[in-house]
Amino acid sequence: MAQTLDSTPQADGFRMPAEFEPHAGTWMAWPERTDNWRLGAGPAQQAFAAVASAIAAAEPVTVAASTRQFENARSRLPAAVRVVEISTNDAWMRDTGPTFVIDRKGRRRGVDWIFNAWGGLDGGLYFPWDQDDLVAHKVLEIEGADRYRAPFVLEGGAIHVDGQGTLLTTEECLLNPNRNPQLGRADIESLLQRYLGIEQVVWLGRGVYNDETDGHVDNLCCFTAPGEVALSWCNDRDDPQYEISRDAYERLMAERDARGRPFKVHKLPQPGPLVMTVAEAEGVDTGEGAKPRLAGDRMAGSYVNFYVANGRVVMPLLDSRRDRRARQVLAEAFPGREVVGVPAREILLGGGNIHCITQQVPAPRRR
Amino acid sequence: MAQTLDSTPQADGFRMPAEFEPHAGTWMAWPERTDNWRLGAGPAQQAFAAVASAIAAAEPVTVAASTRQFENARSRLPAAVRVVEISTNDAWMRDTGPTFVIDRKGRRRGVDWIFNAWGGLDGGLYFPWDQDDLVAHKVLEIEGADRYRAPFVLEGGAIHVDGQGTLLTTEECLLNPNRNPQLGRADIESLLQRYLGIEQVVWLGRGVYNDETDGHVDNLCCFTAPGEVALSWCNDRDDPQYEISRDAYERLMAERDARGRPFKVHKLPQPGPLVMTVAEAEGVDTGEGAKPRLAGDRMAGSYVNFYVANGRVVMPLLDSRRDRRARQVLAEAFPGREVVGVPAREILLGGGNIHCITQQVPAPRRR
Repeated sequence: MAQTLDSTPQADGFRMPAEFEPHAGTWMAWPERTDNWRLGAGPAQQAFAAVASAIAAAEPVTVAASTRQFENARSRLPAAVRVVEISTNDAWMRDTGPTFVIDRKGRRRGVDWIFNAWGGLDGGLYFPWDQDDLVAHKVLEIEGADRYRAPFVLEGGAIHVDGQGTLLTTEECLLNPNRNPQLGRADIESLLQRYLGIEQVVWLGRGVYNDETDGHVDNLCCFTAPGEVALSWCNDRDDPQYEISRDAYERLMAERDARGRPFKVHKLPQPGPLVMTVAEAEGVDTGEGAKPRLAGDRMAGSYVNFYVANGRVVMPLLDSRRDRRARQVLAEAFPGREVVGVPAREILLGGGNIHCITQQVPAPRRR
Repeated sequence: MAQTLDSTPQADGFRMPAEFEPHAGTWMAWPERTDNWRLGAGPAQQAFAAVASAIAAAEPVTVAASTRQFENARSRLPAAVRVVEISTNDAWMRDTGPTFVIDRKGRRRGVDWIFNAWGGLDGGLYFPWDQDDLVAHKVLEIEGADRYRAPFVLEGGAIHVDGQGTLLTTEECLLNPNRNPQLGRADIESLLQRYLGIEQVVWLGRGVYNDETDGHVDNLCCFTAPGEVALSWCNDRDDPQYEISRDAYERLMAERDARGRPFKVHKLPQPGPLVMTVAEAEGVDTGEGAKPRLAGDRMAGSYVNFYVANGRVVMPLLDSRRDRRARQVLAEAFPGREVVGVPAREILLGGGNIHCITQQVPAPRRR
């Protein structure tokens, strides 16, 4: 029995656990819109299926597919992956799915944020987004989890938490007037506290260069353990990413987390720079409803856009000159886990990566 | 982890339990097509919600709704009812949902029959039926139950079993050339044995008069206990139902079940006769894709179209002059259960009743 609650997670004793805490499973969605995914979405579907397989080896995976794609998704995904019908506008479960919260009694609930396609009519990436805004509710019905409908716009990729009171985000995204123009920094902090049970917000500035989400933190910087983060890093002073990463680093050095710890930073090399090829851009259908994909577009590639599953880290393979070093850094940051790479350029072509297309369901447990 | 199996339930040691055996829950679907349900399907939705509520008081209920109706269904159903997105062509979960089978180890699987809208292009009730034919698979994915895809056309409402080897059906439906023209009586019996784990088929002749399903047995006759059935009965020699019910009775008297028992018959009075009013017919949208609804149509009303939930029987209320007697008969036939009546004319207007819109999920248990 699941219902929509009028209270807040904080008031009810719930908190968002860190991604590296134990999972009950993972949700994903199936890509299909041909005005964002080239060649009828086939190459993207292959990449998504590889991600689902890599995670399913570690924990249960459910993939949401529209009824048009149900049979195709079912046939292209391994039997271990559950496929359910959910209509979507696109396949970014991190941003459209619920953010799960847990309490000390082992209960699990979900926060359903208002979704406006990363900026609504003012810079959003497609129109309409009505189906995406229903995804979190539908996931929670299937999970049998009670639901909080948060009264503000947020995407799951815009936040990371350490599970011990600290939240990481960017000013570029959360203070962008195309999300919650009525809310100031203090209002946002207060809402994050109430809906995620956190105590402190660590503000970074801009996200990865040319990131069309308006700088989601999950492409720039994430927790790898309490007191430790991974940060996308660029050594080329002439690259626009250089200043962004350096600013983030300096802010992190100047901050302490909710428990008073300084941050240890694992620097992940930036892949590329990566740009869309003519062949890649030409494979995307033209349509009024979505942001055009153009040859030469600088893509916001980042190794930070990995996913932490039970016992393994699933990382994007994006650049043969950098993949190995990135894998090394992740192996050091996650000593207890296997690091599994999945070719992910086809996901990046659509505007995000492995973290953007996944959403964890925490395992409820007693502390 | 659910997968589609190449074997058969019988070969794997699975059988279909009787509806009166313990349930884990019930599936329903949400009505919306306005060329079958009058006044934008509103009155039907109210009736379906009342049925869902009556069952949810006894066991978990899941309602499948299209994305167009997801929010409306969610708001009109009690919080105890789970709502999930599943596209449909109409709302007859008995006929489009899976038939669950169980084994002695407590496992549960599902049979996914081929569905052709009660006759395909030769007398079927609407076109297309592609979404309905996917419903069973989608239900099984959510239930996490392995699936058998049966190689022939059947609807759940065309069969009833006693859970002890006996299956009840009608010649009018199962031998109708608009279902499986390539299969004779012996072929059908063999397939029913293999896919439902039954041993003996008891053939009745025609179903209820003017039943547009081609005589589904679940509107005419059903098991109430091993060795006992309920039969829709008509005492008016001038009514076309008279001969049908009498023939069924005589066949039952001449038969023995799979364990050699004679049948005890509980006669349920026929309501009405019930005909569609001008106002009712006028409220239905006109469309090429569905059977027209005409004022004066004789409807196939029957009290046999009830549902057996854990601890209660949910029966249709159809005729103030007959409801009480029908309730008495059911109370006698189900001595351990509460009989709950739900006003159901709005369901009958769409072509079926409470049994047609429900599908049980048996509780797996060890024998």
